[in-house]
Amino acid sequence: MLLYNSQVSGNCYKVRLLLAHLDVKYERQELSVADRSNRPDILGGLNPALRVPTLVLDDGRSLGESGAIIWFFGEGTRFVPDDPYERAQVLQWMFFEQYDHEPAIAVVRFWLAYSGRPREEFADRLDERLAAGYRALDGMERHLDGRSWLVGDGMTLADIALYAYTHVAAEGGFELDRYPAIVAWLERVASEPGHVAIDA
Amino acid sequence: MLLYNSQVSGNCYKVRLLLAHLDVKYERQELSVADRSNRPDILGGLNPALRVPTLVLDDGRSLGESGAIIWFFGEGTRFVPDDPYERAQVLQWMFFEQYDHEPAIAVVRFWLAYSGRPREEFADRLDERLAAGYRALDGMERHLDGRSWLVGDGMTLADIALYAYTHVAAEGGFELDRYPAIVAWLERVASEPGHVAIDA
Repeated sequence: MLLYNSQVSGNCYKVRLLLAHLDVKYERQELSVADRSNRPDILGGLNPALRVPTLVLDDGRSLGESGAIIWFFGEGTRFVPDDPYERAQVLQWMFFEQYDHEPAIAVVRFWLAYSGRPREEFADRLDERLAAGYRALDGMERHLDGRSWLVGDGMTLADIALYAYTHVAAEGGFELDRYPAIVAWLERVASEPGHVAIDA
Repeated sequence: MLLYNSQVSGNCYKVRLLLAHLDVKYERQELSVADRSNRPDILGGLNPALRVPTLVLDDGRSLGESGAIIWFFGEGTRFVPDDPYERAQVLQWMFFEQYDHEPAIAVVRFWLAYSGRPREEFADRLDERLAAGYRALDGMERHLDGRSWLVGDGMTLADIALYAYTHVAAEGGFELDRYPAIVAWLERVASEPGHVAIDA
């Protein structure tokens, strides 16, 4: 099994983190997040979005979108609840992450820490994205206050999906110490047996 | 069961279209897509993203995110395949819709047709979003060429999710006649018994 990967990508890290917990073995092929010019050649036919992560199974079938990949491996394990409402809640947080959280927090982190381009290039959009990122963090904090996990009584794909970019949000300048419930939850996720770091 | 709804929203339409196919009854409460000032009061505690669609079940439990809501009702019906890989493919297209397709096609449509604000306000971002929308449509066209449905041999949640904003993309100025496979697929979705229009 082959994962087209970018090591700094939180979207790819979701897949790597789940597969580490499940002890599933795979090969990696690293693609650049800054120079994406080779992606149509490499990912065309494998993933309509031409993005990483893209997974190729041993039989040649492929799958794109971090949320779809972790659902594929997560169903039937402790990371996807059996209860239909809790399953839908896990997906609610995963869609929230892709629509509200990632386009703000991951994008600002990429601009400032990984794009190789000067901050001024993004100046006219930075405040809007920072505000959107803080709105997403506010929503997480309200929900996590008094809870150990996003859904139910244990870690699920929802926690893996939100952990990925939240735990490196400071690289985009987000001040996480405003959010005690999020900080405690980040430590809880990282303390789970089988955890691996984003650079592992 | 109560759906917080905006009639023009494709995200809400996904829910209405699936529930029509499944013959599930519900009440609607209409919220404005232009004036969103009352949303924290109404949706706070129900949906961390404070957006429509938000569904409140008869027992008071709530669910946000169109993808999570249609998954909740779709699992166990003909709209979600049994095969694990096909299930993940359905989610791949649903995440693609929320990450690549909706933020381009739905946003341009909203700006130009529903925001009540002049086109000039969006001038500096319009070209980028139009290009992103056409990239998403290109990906759909490549995949649908030679296929009847996005996943497998029948209509799934993937088709419902992508149909919602694709069939009204012209309201954002997108020229769908460049895409014969998409046009044929749109007609196929609309011809399914039980179909309802976005304004129904």
